[in-house]
Amino acid sequence: MAGSIFGKIFTITTWGESHGPGVGVVIDGCPAGLELVERDIQLDLNKRRPGQSPFCTPRDEADKVKILSGVFEDKTTGTPISLLVYNKDHRSRDYTEIMDTYRPGHADMAYDAKYGFRDYRGGGRSSGRETIARVAAGAIAKKILNELGVQLVTYTKSIGHLTINEANFEASIIYENPFRFPDSELVEPCEEYLNALIKEGNSAGGVIECRVNGLPAGIGQPVFDKLDGLLAHAIMSIGAIKGVEIGAGFGATKMTGYENNDFYKDDHGHIVKESNNAGGMTGGISDGSEIIIRAGVKATPSIHLEQKAINRQGDLIDLVIGGRHDPVIVPRAVIVVENMIAVTLLDLLLQQTATQMDYLKKLFKNDA
Amino acid sequence: MAGSIFGKIFTITTWGESHGPGVGVVIDGCPAGLELVERDIQLDLNKRRPGQSPFCTPRDEADKVKILSGVFEDKTTGTPISLLVYNKDHRSRDYTEIMDTYRPGHADMAYDAKYGFRDYRGGGRSSGRETIARVAAGAIAKKILNELGVQLVTYTKSIGHLTINEANFEASIIYENPFRFPDSELVEPCEEYLNALIKEGNSAGGVIECRVNGLPAGIGQPVFDKLDGLLAHAIMSIGAIKGVEIGAGFGATKMTGYENNDFYKDDHGHIVKESNNAGGMTGGISDGSEIIIRAGVKATPSIHLEQKAINRQGDLIDLVIGGRHDPVIVPRAVIVVENMIAVTLLDLLLQQTATQMDYLKKLFKNDA
Amino acid sequence: MAGSIFGKIFTITTWGESHGPGVGVVIDGCPAGLELVERDIQLDLNKRRPGQSPFCTPRDEADKVKILSGVFEDKTTGTPISLLVYNKDHRSRDYTEIMDTYRPGHADMAYDAKYGFRDYRGGGRSSGRETIARVAAGAIAKKILNELGVQLVTYTKSIGHLTINEANFEASIIYENPFRFPDSELVEPCEEYLNALIKEGNSAGGVIECRVNGLPAGIGQPVFDKLDGLLAHAIMSIGAIKGVEIGAGFGATKMTGYENNDFYKDDHGHIVKESNNAGGMTGGISDGSEIIIRAGVKATPSIHLEQKAINRQGDLIDLVIGGRHDPVIVPRAVIVVENMIAVTLLDLLLQQTATQMDYLKKLFKNDA
Amino acid sequence: MAGSIFGKIFTITTWGESHGPGVGVVIDGCPAGLELVERDIQLDLNKRRPGQSPFCTPRDEADKVKILSGVFEDKTTGTPISLLVYNKDHRSRDYTEIMDTYRPGHADMAYDAKYGFRDYRGGGRSSGRETIARVAAGAIAKKILNELGVQLVTYTKSIGHLTINEANFEASIIYENPFRFPDSELVEPCEEYLNALIKEGNSAGGVIECRVNGLPAGIGQPVFDKLDGLLAHAIMSIGAIKGVEIGAGFGATKMTGYENNDFYKDDHGHIVKESNNAGGMTGGISDGSEIIIRAGVKATPSIHLEQKAINRQGDLIDLVIGGRHDPVIVPRAVIVVENMIAVTLLDLLLQQTATQMDYLKKLFKNDA
Repeated sequence: MAGSIFGKIFTITTWGESHGPGVGVVIDGCPAGLELVERDIQLDLNKRRPGQSPFCTPRDEADKVKILSGVFEDKTTGTPISLLVYNKDHRSRDYTEIMDTYRPGHADMAYDAKYGFRDYRGGGRSSGRETIARVAAGAIAKKILNELGVQLVTYTKSIGHLTINEANFEASIIYENPFRFPDSELVEPCEEYLNALIKEGNSAGGVIECRVNGLPAGIGQPVFDKLDGLLAHAIMSIGAIKGVEIGAGFGATKMTGYENNDFYKDDHGHIVKESNNAGGMTGGISDGSEIIIRAGVKATPSIHLEQKAINRQGDLIDLVIGGRHDPVIVPRAVIVVENMIAVTLLDLLLQQTATQMDYLKKLFKNDA
Repeated sequence: MAGSIFGKIFTITTWGESHGPGVGVVIDGCPAGLELVERDIQLDLNKRRPGQSPFCTPRDEADKVKILSGVFEDKTTGTPISLLVYNKDHRSRDYTEIMDTYRPGHADMAYDAKYGFRDYRGGGRSSGRETIARVAAGAIAKKILNELGVQLVTYTKSIGHLTINEANFEASIIYENPFRFPDSELVEPCEEYLNALIKEGNSAGGVIECRVNGLPAGIGQPVFDKLDGLLAHAIMSIGAIKGVEIGAGFGATKMTGYENNDFYKDDHGHIVKESNNAGGMTGGISDGSEIIIRAGVKATPSIHLEQKAINRQGDLIDLVIGGRHDPVIVPRAVIVVENMIAVTLLDLLLQQTATQMDYLKKLFKNDA
Repeated sequence: MAGSIFGKIFTITTWGESHGPGVGVVIDGCPAGLELVERDIQLDLNKRRPGQSPFCTPRDEADKVKILSGVFEDKTTGTPISLLVYNKDHRSRDYTEIMDTYRPGHADMAYDAKYGFRDYRGGGRSSGRETIARVAAGAIAKKILNELGVQLVTYTKSIGHLTINEANFEASIIYENPFRFPDSELVEPCEEYLNALIKEGNSAGGVIECRVNGLPAGIGQPVFDKLDGLLAHAIMSIGAIKGVEIGAGFGATKMTGYENNDFYKDDHGHIVKESNNAGGMTGGISDGSEIIIRAGVKATPSIHLEQKAINRQGDLIDLVIGGRHDPVIVPRAVIVVENMIAVTLLDLLLQQTATQMDYLKKLFKNDA
Repeated sequence: MAGSIFGKIFTITTWGESHGPGVGVVIDGCPAGLELVERDIQLDLNKRRPGQSPFCTPRDEADKVKILSGVFEDKTTGTPISLLVYNKDHRSRDYTEIMDTYRPGHADMAYDAKYGFRDYRGGGRSSGRETIARVAAGAIAKKILNELGVQLVTYTKSIGHLTINEANFEASIIYENPFRFPDSELVEPCEEYLNALIKEGNSAGGVIECRVNGLPAGIGQPVFDKLDGLLAHAIMSIGAIKGVEIGAGFGATKMTGYENNDFYKDDHGHIVKESNNAGGMTGGISDGSEIIIRAGVKATPSIHLEQKAINRQGDLIDLVIGGRHDPVIVPRAVIVVENMIAVTLLDLLLQQTATQMDYLKKLFKNDA
């Protein structure tokens, strides 16, 4: 119950610290009969790997995943899938100074308050390396969704004040630039912006957006486990994310009902939605149209500028942090957001199999 | 698992439809020994009751709560507390037309897709009356939090384009104006704005903000059940909410790390935070400072203007909705948001009792 | 989490005390589209009602159930079903003496230790009236199982030393005798045995057995949520039950592997099991054959003979209990055991809908 | 939700197959500040290791445990503890014949029915190697219980018809004989009995008993999560166990209320219980006295005698199983039962920390 478990049917349990032996995840409730090899997972892990551009931490990690259980002859068996990624680059260094320091924007003080002490090496459990487990589990969820016709596209919508122009949208280029922008015109300005920040030892944040197509109508639960409620939970549980929106999001708060309601129109004989302010769901349940979600990511708190901080004793200190850090975490977080969405959607889709007497008769009475 | 249960230790299970006999909630895991009478709950229910101003639905409901279990001689016993509110005003009318209509912004189509059919009387389970159960449960959670020194203040931050001026902030007036504004200067402009919308049969949305003080540092879990993750879940699970933010929220995405990190300063001998962009939590765990949360509420989808909609058969129709509706749901949702936050905070606070060997020895070995 | 919730998909939350306003249950996750009226539930509640024979408590309770939500036009909607039974006969009497007494075999002392105090009126939450909620929820589970071809037969196997003779087994007479025996020859001896115990103010226990037919093979989970693990949980959670067995049960501990393994034989061209020591499941998963479960019920602890007990202060006292009690609880517990088994089987059957890629394609890709 | 997770606060998630790379467990919710090294866990794993006597399988496994997370400087941090044991002796052999055979007493057929196919190498997930994860997690739970003054003693009560004589009870010899008997007089007869069975290729079952002392009164939840309910769940979820009893168990079904109720007496100035038929709990909650639990274990289904079985195609076949097997599983299961009990007790004890307003004030208001 300490909150390292997510999902009700497709249940993922994650573990691991930044500077321990490794990180991993156990997936309980993966349907049997899915074709699965390590490469299926590795491709997504590679998307969050450090060291891929000048705009992320140079920490050197292969992040090679091993499947330890739940797969037999390249097919899932229905039993728990245990995935393990060893930490390679957990440099032995002197933490004497850092162990009593509470870095601004980090969870150092919160962990000490919670547990009485903490693993102070590189953030321990609060490190971004924890998201490896999310990405790995989500890769499997996404493979199942894909087989059922559900497709996710996720990208950086903005970094700092630089925002994509929808008119330039090209999904194919997302992983061909270091920022995961679907807009090629934004790449150069962003390089300039980040290089300036790197130079001064500063960092940036941004917004990630995900669009889901092909999800059947009817997915999501009516009250607490609304599709949007669980997506918000999944996304806001990723470190550094400070806001979540569905469809028009906070923009909807300024529209009238007449402006915000999604009307229909006849488009050459097809009845289609004129707008999608709802972001593909009403009452917490998918309506079969495109799902749109945004996540707001704060700037990396690890900066090299001097900061006024406190230490464990409560004294004011002048803090200068060394070490390797991402000047912007947004691009590497794109796949984390996408895969947490995949886990959430699959879990709710699996729940849907138990909701109608008709479904039960189809599966157990050969009434199909 | 159909998502009508929320919380792990302080667990609330809600039930009820708009036009059924009533709505209610069962609270399992309420600590024993809390003084509790119906009035403690009724005061909060009155805050969301309809019919209190010209700016909400005239549906006439006393919303009187009954405690059916779990309380003995005005003290909680530790066993489940069952709360029941009968529906009074479930007018018998002709729903023939509505049963095949999918109202824009409503969950009609989603429910049909999910279950194969739906209770079409007034929204059924997707009605705002479902939130009575949330408010009732939250009133109890809040009473416990209050006894432990935790205080919540929640209010309307904006309606449409009208936003409060922080300089005018007065907590005492929140429940003395129909909009739940803490800024008296906004009341008259808002009346004018809404009267104009009511006249044309339109509606508005807005933003709700909550500030929590007195929560100890250390509350929240490190990974999926982060304090912000669960708050996002709790709030986004309320109907009509399309966005959630913590602290600087989406604003943080445009700041640099140096701007966003909360530094400390010496304030006449006290070490205090200079800013609170983090909104009182880092790494998903409270840091002991003020918690700040915002919820974005869309405009009421029930408007009287003609809308292009579809019916169950998929045909395009011109829809005009009659009946009683809130021109803006924000003011009545303030207490719903507050009480869902209370439930979430209490649940995480109760989880904290099992996290340290020192706590266990204090409770079970008389080591205090 | 305080343990008033059972089941993962078909989730039941119960509430209520012996001498409060009533008892009830909320069922979340009931599939939509089941035909359901109050009478479906009432018939099972009548089977546990008191006052039906000289061999149970004369407490007068109609135990009339009301459906408060989740059913529309006599069909389940998929949303929570709230069931309520008011307590009628909660006589006002003087509990001054009882409030400080710890009755042997009762939970008085345990509740005081757990919560610091207790609702001492008639056992409060530990009263047998709590099982009304189990029976009501189970009636719905059983109706679904029946529609899918699963049948349960449950009966008293023994009372004290009187045990049924399998050769006399007649399912049709179970509810035609006050003891729920399927063996008519045992009725008269049992009347004599119990009349003698009633005369001296004493009580008896016994064994309940349930046989389930028609459950598909493949139901149950491999490790902790084995079919037998969950059945043991469900049954042992009923007050007064001190033992649970599957198939040959403790008898299997004295057999060799060769004796205990269930072999097959050719029976006029059909391959059938020669024995069923496994009780219909191996590895925690049903094998499609008959399921056999037994529950051991202790004698009613409320007896009228003088007992050496203690009080709240820890003093030794001579206790004589008055009031109305069941001289044997076994017959009334038969339907409680049956319906908890039904809840457990249905929950696991619903879980099975999410276990195979083939099922998912059948439901979501029209691959049937 | 596929049932590889157990416990609500101290939550264990297990994974692994008999012939995969290894088996393991993730423990979420372990309190911070417990001193823990691998040796603490290894000592218990050694108690279930194969190859220790002529009376268990000669499969050669070191069963060396590795701690992969959640421990820092030999203390638990409060974050998930991941434990891993590699499988060493997963011999490559030809399974062509076995893959279509349904072995009597095994889960072969049930797994095929559940998932559509199965990992047929040595039982896969249904293998006894799955219990390594239970033992490892339980070792940690037991260490915490021990620090809080709770002690468990578990032993073989009977093998076949050979039952211990209480008068000979010596806890110190349990791990000094291959059968885990606390009665030295039973060792030689048991050797003879088992040698005879081994000679004919047959096997035996038996009964395991556990006694717990030092558990505070008040542990356990009132309704579904009764102490006995959860113990029954925990124990019956172990493979090969067909029955569970608390205190007098099935014996209580033949006693009268007067015989079964536990009376008190004055023993030289101390008020003590005269008997303990309740096994240390009433109403599902501990009463502070000794807890007594028994588990009935069936004979190992893997025998070398010819058996009438069926194959995947449903044909009757004559089956002779080769390979290495335990002639009796009882002795190796003793530590499995003990450690599952430890997990269950600790989880309920941790739940108790959130049950009283007084506790909350003690922890959060410095009211101690």
